[in-house]
Amino acid sequence: MNCKTFSSLLSNLREKRPLVHHITNYVTVNDCANITLCIGAAPVMAHAHEEVAEMVSMAGALVLNIGTLDKSQIESMLIAGKRANQLNIPIILDPVGAGATRLRTECANRLLHDLKISVIKGNAGEIAILAGEEGIVKGVDSHGVKGDPLSIAKSLASSLGLTVAMSGATDIVTDGKKSIFIDNGHELMGKISGTGCMAASICGAFSSVTEDSVTSTAAALTAFGIAGEKAGVNNYAPFSFKTSLFDEVYKLSPEDLEKYARVRVI
Amino acid sequence: MNCKTFSSLLSNLREKRPLVHHITNYVTVNDCANITLCIGAAPVMAHAHEEVAEMVSMAGALVLNIGTLDKSQIESMLIAGKRANQLNIPIILDPVGAGATRLRTECANRLLHDLKISVIKGNAGEIAILAGEEGIVKGVDSHGVKGDPLSIAKSLASSLGLTVAMSGATDIVTDGKKSIFIDNGHELMGKISGTGCMAASICGAFSSVTEDSVTSTAAALTAFGIAGEKAGVNNYAPFSFKTSLFDEVYKLSPEDLEKYARVRVI
Amino acid sequence: MNCKTFSSLLSNLREKRPLVHHITNYVTVNDCANITLCIGAAPVMAHAHEEVAEMVSMAGALVLNIGTLDKSQIESMLIAGKRANQLNIPIILDPVGAGATRLRTECANRLLHDLKISVIKGNAGEIAILAGEEGIVKGVDSHGVKGDPLSIAKSLASSLGLTVAMSGATDIVTDGKKSIFIDNGHELMGKISGTGCMAASICGAFSSVTEDSVTSTAAALTAFGIAGEKAGVNNYAPFSFKTSLFDEVYKLSPEDLEKYARVRVI
Repeated sequence: MNCKTFSSLLSNLREKRPLVHHITNYVTVNDCANITLCIGAAPVMAHAHEEVAEMVSMAGALVLNIGTLDKSQIESMLIAGKRANQLNIPIILDPVGAGATRLRTECANRLLHDLKISVIKGNAGEIAILAGEEGIVKGVDSHGVKGDPLSIAKSLASSLGLTVAMSGATDIVTDGKKSIFIDNGHELMGKISGTGCMAASICGAFSSVTEDSVTSTAAALTAFGIAGEKAGVNNYAPFSFKTSLFDEVYKLSPEDLEKYARVRVI
Repeated sequence: MNCKTFSSLLSNLREKRPLVHHITNYVTVNDCANITLCIGAAPVMAHAHEEVAEMVSMAGALVLNIGTLDKSQIESMLIAGKRANQLNIPIILDPVGAGATRLRTECANRLLHDLKISVIKGNAGEIAILAGEEGIVKGVDSHGVKGDPLSIAKSLASSLGLTVAMSGATDIVTDGKKSIFIDNGHELMGKISGTGCMAASICGAFSSVTEDSVTSTAAALTAFGIAGEKAGVNNYAPFSFKTSLFDEVYKLSPEDLEKYARVRVI
Repeated sequence: MNCKTFSSLLSNLREKRPLVHHITNYVTVNDCANITLCIGAAPVMAHAHEEVAEMVSMAGALVLNIGTLDKSQIESMLIAGKRANQLNIPIILDPVGAGATRLRTECANRLLHDLKISVIKGNAGEIAILAGEEGIVKGVDSHGVKGDPLSIAKSLASSLGLTVAMSGATDIVTDGKKSIFIDNGHELMGKISGTGCMAASICGAFSSVTEDSVTSTAAALTAFGIAGEKAGVNNYAPFSFKTSLFDEVYKLSPEDLEKYARVRVI
């Protein structure tokens, strides 16, 4: 894998400073706003039915996260998503908790059916559920899948014609044909709330600078993983780590992406 | 008080990693999620009427916090609470601001009437109001009660048949018969938003590993108080203290509970 | 400018510890709560139509922030605002994203029409839009105005009979007659989400101790700016800076305001 592409995407993103429109949960929304700023983009959160179509028109990407969804928010997502599709603005879907409740599974499936999504980013359990495979999701955590994660991710990507990012100790990014394994990351990223949501925000930021969703998503997760590794050097507990994680995303240079990426094309 | 019980509850909780379902305010929800992770449990926040019964079925405890309540959220709490009661899942109620407005007082009373609550955790003013005594609550702060705090807490606990935790410089935990005073804690815990809410989350986590609510609640508040003391050793301002508070909850060992607990059985 | 006034306002505020009622967005609400505590006031967030009039009655100030507004929240703001007006409780309006969508512009204008607002605090683009001038607002960021910022701020203040605070590298505070330039602040304040919202919270706290809105607003922004400068001394990345920013607001002394204020009366 030539990680020069990753580093130029980061440069381009910082030059463009795209607006990333989020319709997201109220638990980690502040983290999403700040990580979007740290990577070099501009976050906006807006959910009112009356304004989401107008807001998304200005955006470089739309991030939909169903972490604390309800009926009114699903409607917001559909309105914003349809406008994003008309304008070819990429949509990132984070199907938080799909599989844990019927509402979440159905909502994720409805968004996938009614909208043209560019990237689904979820944990193994969530991706398995959306692929129609067996996966166990308890609350918002994956408790395992039956079968091979890569095959599940590829199968979902192929059947829907989009990019799937399955997070884990090794992240998998695939469009069903090209698949990338990303080994960057740090254990403490799993000890704080919101790293999954933040990853989706960063995917959104990167997706606004290239139409190649596999590359933009892999670049985003690699960037976040490297920042996590840097934050983990001197921090051994989750909240001091979290502070450093934001700082390291902010300080991340395009060169860091070339130097520290640990990615494998499968 | 034999604090060996406290330490084994913490060990059990970390082994079980219970799901703690929160229906809570949007001000401190991120803190609640992170403190739940730090103590060793798994947080989930979900409020949609369509999913709360299903979500709570997977949980070890349900935390209801009325900090930014509205009608729709009260309904969510009732639906989730009724299901929790059917499944004998303990419910922790944090009646934030009861006494400050009629809506809050009525909502807290309705939840206490319609649901079988295991633990009410509030400040002195909130507890006094719910006990039908005189208490002054301004915003979300207690501005004093008339009468003896222990008697008020015992009276509420006895009349409702549950455990009351009254927070303060010394926390009081009582079921009306057995009462425990907890002297652990640090002054800076009162200088940041959300420590009360976080305490309720920790109570939820501990409540999932024993049916003895007085003990689980006392263990939770003792654990949080000890972490606060540790965080206060090298921090003199609220936000660096807050970072350390999460870290110290994460690092807290069962042995710390035996070693540093300052509790008195009354 | 005699900054003794600023320092005595801070002393008074800390002695009075006013309740600051916020109806605000869910992105930065936790930051608003904590910064309100750090400056020495008491935050409360409440939006239910049934309770906002009662809650605001106890408050020293009402902060309205339209960062994630929807129809129901606009209604909450109108109910709370009308009661605040009856009781002469000052209202601070932060018209987040006015100009970015019709909903936000119309909502800000409706609040300005239906309520007696004391202070509008916004970025240059937002203020220009409300003044009927040309301003570009993308998401929640100002992308420039046509014309002289001071003239625009003065024109809005004069036409509405209130105080306008226009944030920027140099903050402008004016009631159309008296204008103050504030040079305090730090570049990293623009790199984290929520500093604008926090500034409005601090304006609310200060507004509760004097009827002179120009002075209270200038004192608030100066205080926040000085804390930012102090936080910037040893921090070079946004999130460690943010932690220090809260701490420095907490540690700020009345003497600091006299010593470090860089304000110019125009």
